[in-house]
Amino acid sequence: MLLYTLDLFGTAVFAISGAWLACRKDMDIFGAMVLAFVTAVGGGTIRDVLLGATPVFWVQDHDYVMVILASTLLAILVRRWHERTHHLLLISDALGLAVFTVIGVTKALAFGASPIVAVMMGVLTGCGGGAIRDLLSGEVPLVLKKEVYAFAAMAGGAVFVTLESHIGVNEATLLSAGLVLLLRLLAMYKKLSLPRFDLPPVAR
Amino acid sequence: MLLYTLDLFGTAVFAISGAWLACRKDMDIFGAMVLAFVTAVGGGTIRDVLLGATPVFWVQDHDYVMVILASTLLAILVRRWHERTHHLLLISDALGLAVFTVIGVTKALAFGASPIVAVMMGVLTGCGGGAIRDLLSGEVPLVLKKEVYAFAAMAGGAVFVTLESHIGVNEATLLSAGLVLLLRLLAMYKKLSLPRFDLPPVAR
Amino acid sequence: MLLYTLDLFGTAVFAISGAWLACRKDMDIFGAMVLAFVTAVGGGTIRDVLLGATPVFWVQDHDYVMVILASTLLAILVRRWHERTHHLLLISDALGLAVFTVIGVTKALAFGASPIVAVMMGVLTGCGGGAIRDLLSGEVPLVLKKEVYAFAAMAGGAVFVTLESHIGVNEATLLSAGLVLLLRLLAMYKKLSLPRFDLPPVAR
Repeated sequence: MLLYTLDLFGTAVFAISGAWLACRKDMDIFGAMVLAFVTAVGGGTIRDVLLGATPVFWVQDHDYVMVILASTLLAILVRRWHERTHHLLLISDALGLAVFTVIGVTKALAFGASPIVAVMMGVLTGCGGGAIRDLLSGEVPLVLKKEVYAFAAMAGGAVFVTLESHIGVNEATLLSAGLVLLLRLLAMYKKLSLPRFDLPPVAR
Repeated sequence: MLLYTLDLFGTAVFAISGAWLACRKDMDIFGAMVLAFVTAVGGGTIRDVLLGATPVFWVQDHDYVMVILASTLLAILVRRWHERTHHLLLISDALGLAVFTVIGVTKALAFGASPIVAVMMGVLTGCGGGAIRDLLSGEVPLVLKKEVYAFAAMAGGAVFVTLESHIGVNEATLLSAGLVLLLRLLAMYKKLSLPRFDLPPVAR
Repeated sequence: MLLYTLDLFGTAVFAISGAWLACRKDMDIFGAMVLAFVTAVGGGTIRDVLLGATPVFWVQDHDYVMVILASTLLAILVRRWHERTHHLLLISDALGLAVFTVIGVTKALAFGASPIVAVMMGVLTGCGGGAIRDLLSGEVPLVLKKEVYAFAAMAGGAVFVTLESHIGVNEATLLSAGLVLLLRLLAMYKKLSLPRFDLPPVAR
């Protein structure tokens, strides 16, 4: 129940970030809705499709769509607050990432995925929406290039699949979501980044 | 039966627009086929996948693939007519949008989607193919930026889910498809556009 | 069994090509993993989703994920060998294309697809991963623009569906995979290309 509430909260936060990117990209109100939508449910949707959990979650549970529509309208109304709420949004986004990751891992395990595939599904649930948002805006997904965004989800997911059978689902959820949140905030405020491996540009 | 014929007609029109974009983008004949294909069935395919209606419609019904292959070859043969048929193609495209939208809404309702999700599926069926076509060509989907394309589908879908249980499916189909067509033609010839909400560009 | 081994081999080769592109595109190690992953299983994943063969193959069979992770690490470790192994990689890639195509056609037929749709599924299995890799890197998919890559898969797939019921699956597999390999190598070393059909650039 708490997890469901946090899930809807994360959905709202992701939707707002999508809607604001649409504003910056000179899209119309429909573009803002689409970008809000794919950012909020894109990752979970791909997860459901890959697992065969169809109709996908937001077709089955009406609440997600309502939350996204309301958040998009709110985001457009208060778009002047964009800079003032920058930090609040980043922190909320980290919380959303944590919740989405744990939900993704849990659902994949329930569909019989192995632990390592379940972690991947957690990362996909947390990061997939933002990646599609970037693609639709004509950019290389930020998650492939910058900061420890996906790594935080991966670490949290790994902790979850390791602990879940030992300490109970609720405790594992709390610990792993907390880890994602912590890593993500550290990455943002300490400017951590994963190593890069350079190759000279070559013709293909 | 009429709807099925119109569906194949819309498929052909969308395929031609995809093939011609491929020509302009310096792709080869295979690129033209791919772009024709995703433009014609991309939206409906994503709809089927999200609803769990698999194998998707064109795997089950062979006709769509045959229509697309024939249209692509035709489009390549008569590509010099490109400018002369510009208006005809735009009007046919509007008709295709209308038909695809109604079919998408109907199918989503049949799979138990709520009215609001059904409208979204209608918009996706009508606009999704063109969006993928643009992405594959390296452009931000036009539908996110310009004209009342998606809005026409949304309005038509909303009218369909509202009226369908009151006046019968055939009447609702006719009315809502007509509305999509009307709005789309108005948008094209009167240069209507949805409001945009500007944010100054900011660093992320 | 041989086919399964070759399938894993093709998976490894495609993963390496994805990882090296990520290095060249200034992505981090997570970006390299993602690009390796989508290149290796992207085509087969879309095929499974369209056919309704879910959970998709790599969720059901753990080996693919392990092969991809190992190949990605290997690719990063030996990335200095990039130029030296150029020809070897291209030839391995052609072999991967041949194997993936035949597997795709076979699976589609098993799910009741018509011969022509089965050929498309073969092409998708062989070429889809590379196309997503290019999209995620911010480029127009190479397969739409250059060389007889997709055409080789198409020809091999057509031969397979034609011969399969006459000469047995194993013989058809060998013949069609050999044809893909041959056409692809000819295309690379003889610089064959499909005809292009030019249209003057026009405003949309």
